[in-house]
Amino acid sequence: MPTERFRRGAARLAEMGGDIDAIVAPLADVAPDLARLVGEFAFGDLYTRPGLDLPRRQLVTIASLVTLGDTERQLRFHITAALAVGVTPQEVVETIIHLLAFAGNPRVFNAVLVAKAVFAEHGLLPLPAADQPG
Amino acid sequence: MPTERFRRGAARLAEMGGDIDAIVAPLADVAPDLARLVGEFAFGDLYTRPGLDLPRRQLVTIASLVTLGDTERQLRFHITAALAVGVTPQEVVETIIHLLAFAGNPRVFNAVLVAKAVFAEHGLLPLPAADQPG
Amino acid sequence: MPTERFRRGAARLAEMGGDIDAIVAPLADVAPDLARLVGEFAFGDLYTRPGLDLPRRQLVTIASLVTLGDTERQLRFHITAALAVGVTPQEVVETIIHLLAFAGNPRVFNAVLVAKAVFAEHGLLPLPAADQPG
Amino acid sequence: MPTERFRRGAARLAEMGGDIDAIVAPLADVAPDLARLVGEFAFGDLYTRPGLDLPRRQLVTIASLVTLGDTERQLRFHITAALAVGVTPQEVVETIIHLLAFAGNPRVFNAVLVAKAVFAEHGLLPLPAADQPG
Amino acid sequence: MPTERFRRGAARLAEMGGDIDAIVAPLADVAPDLARLVGEFAFGDLYTRPGLDLPRRQLVTIASLVTLGDTERQLRFHITAALAVGVTPQEVVETIIHLLAFAGNPRVFNAVLVAKAVFAEHGLLPLPAADQPG
Amino acid sequence: MPTERFRRGAARLAEMGGDIDAIVAPLADVAPDLARLVGEFAFGDLYTRPGLDLPRRQLVTIASLVTLGDTERQLRFHITAALAVGVTPQEVVETIIHLLAFAGNPRVFNAVLVAKAVFAEHGLLPLPAADQPG
Repeated sequence: MPTERFRRGAARLAEMGGDIDAIVAPLADVAPDLARLVGEFAFGDLYTRPGLDLPRRQLVTIASLVTLGDTERQLRFHITAALAVGVTPQEVVETIIHLLAFAGNPRVFNAVLVAKAVFAEHGLLPLPAADQPG
Repeated sequence: MPTERFRRGAARLAEMGGDIDAIVAPLADVAPDLARLVGEFAFGDLYTRPGLDLPRRQLVTIASLVTLGDTERQLRFHITAALAVGVTPQEVVETIIHLLAFAGNPRVFNAVLVAKAVFAEHGLLPLPAADQPG
Repeated sequence: MPTERFRRGAARLAEMGGDIDAIVAPLADVAPDLARLVGEFAFGDLYTRPGLDLPRRQLVTIASLVTLGDTERQLRFHITAALAVGVTPQEVVETIIHLLAFAGNPRVFNAVLVAKAVFAEHGLLPLPAADQPG
Repeated sequence: MPTERFRRGAARLAEMGGDIDAIVAPLADVAPDLARLVGEFAFGDLYTRPGLDLPRRQLVTIASLVTLGDTERQLRFHITAALAVGVTPQEVVETIIHLLAFAGNPRVFNAVLVAKAVFAEHGLLPLPAADQPG
Repeated sequence: MPTERFRRGAARLAEMGGDIDAIVAPLADVAPDLARLVGEFAFGDLYTRPGLDLPRRQLVTIASLVTLGDTERQLRFHITAALAVGVTPQEVVETIIHLLAFAGNPRVFNAVLVAKAVFAEHGLLPLPAADQPG
Repeated sequence: MPTERFRRGAARLAEMGGDIDAIVAPLADVAPDLARLVGEFAFGDLYTRPGLDLPRRQLVTIASLVTLGDTERQLRFHITAALAVGVTPQEVVETIIHLLAFAGNPRVFNAVLVAKAVFAEHGLLPLPAADQPG
């Protein structure tokens, strides 16, 4: 019986274009509690907090995942979710490029190639060229 | 003779409430090129790019620094800069709390105590209570 | 009004020799929700789970903190808690030494010096010599 | 001619269900010394120390590997070894879930999927449901 | 129109056996600025600095990438470049083995297997045995 | 009774300007085995290997420590050792600056300030200006 927090998390995830069952199903035979805990806490408690809208939460999430490394699966999910909540592909790319100064080139290159794969799946490539600073 | 990129970076840093001399001076006798390279690249090239406004750049920067760890000095600087470009203390705190899901509790606690110190220096404490989700 | 999960977490923390107020108080004017969320989730949800007793949870926690780095504050807390739940100082040291193979010497040395400080505060030094492998 | 430390390490590894040749062979043409050094030090010196039994060493090892990231190959090996020395699949999962608080969700999800793959190879899925805290 | 810094970076990269187009092309439709920024800064500004020759820069780069983790793609590139600027395969291996003390076994094993793959592509295996310390 | 490997490590450390007793003494009452294991393995086994001279080993070590983070104590020791084995302060600085591309600005700034402190203790500041690339 899902808790109210879990239901709230599942609803939030749906707003982000995600599907709680895609988290629950692969864990069902090994760690069903993990799906519940993450649904309740990450999506139900944290993602539903006021004070930061979903587009900015996704930029923050992407910045954390890029910096952490070994997060290809999570970047794929959260870049997709960023697009679903109205972040533009250019903003995703700009966020990643910005991290050249903080996380170093390897993290940035790995992440941009994940972004490219997500954009390709969504038929978004090539991105229109951004204006460059004078 | 500072390059055009360095001058642009110094100007950008000034908009963020920073002072390029605070970067240049402590490096003068050991690594003056480092100050030049960072002024040119991080502040002159990256921070002046269009496509992401300064408040969002600072949230992204803070998220990266929290996740990286061992960045107390940098968090202090960039939280201060975030306030200078119009990010509210609540948004800083919300960004850090959000990272419970991605960077873990130790990174989040360390960062929130840095934020508290910055806010205290600015006479911003106590923060007004945020509305809580029902 | 604390939730049931928070009360359960505070009780668990007390069993570990901790005091929820030591978490709540320093966050009260900056991020009270963080104290609530961590009390509820880390201590109320995770630390009360069956399947791993508190001594082993503390070894696992210490191993994670050693590996993560920049966790002196947290190591101090969790080594103290380990002693409170019956882990011996020798087991703490052995856990840290074991990590030479996985986390590298710098993380291990930093952690052992934190352990030494905790043991000194508890009047536990010098530790009795362990038997050595032949 | 293997050293006594190496022989001791190979024997310890065998107790853990491993095979020193699986480490030696792939390194033979590129870094034979690495196999020797790791056999001697990690398995011969560290893994044979008294003061922490093998099941707890494996929980500690798994916690470190989960936290470190980019350790799929090593998690696969050490989760398999954990099972070989009597750690239950539930204890492995519980260790990983516990790290939600310290290492963040991405590390935990990556690790649980590795555990799932190891358990599947051993015909251990689905795991019997654990009792939940009331 | 490439900048002078970019042209200098492309030339430096060519000395390292690399090809700037291999960086530019995959980013063309998603983040062309990233290719420009890295060509200008990493290769044009940093890699052309005096004070450290290319073989030592590559050892330093490899040490950083091994330690960072999740850098298989970058290690592949920079080990290849190390060979191109005169670093011997034995020096690459020795650098990686040295990091057992600082970065831990998992990072070292992952890196040595990448090195092995690069050496195999270059027909360099088996490496001649190194002399061992008495 | 120190092993032959430990004696060899202590001798190597002495060549690096270090003193094994400075490692042994602070661990004597808490983890004497750690001093022995590190003396034997890191200094006795790894640091005495042929194939990479001490100056290059120190550049590699510094690169790893900068990248790892939370290594101020270790950087202090190994930058001092680098000077002792003939690495110039400029080479230390150059190594650190090079890592802007791989480890990001925060790691580089933290490290350069440690280097500055070490150089100051040795009366080496200000460093003579390096030639700049045209």
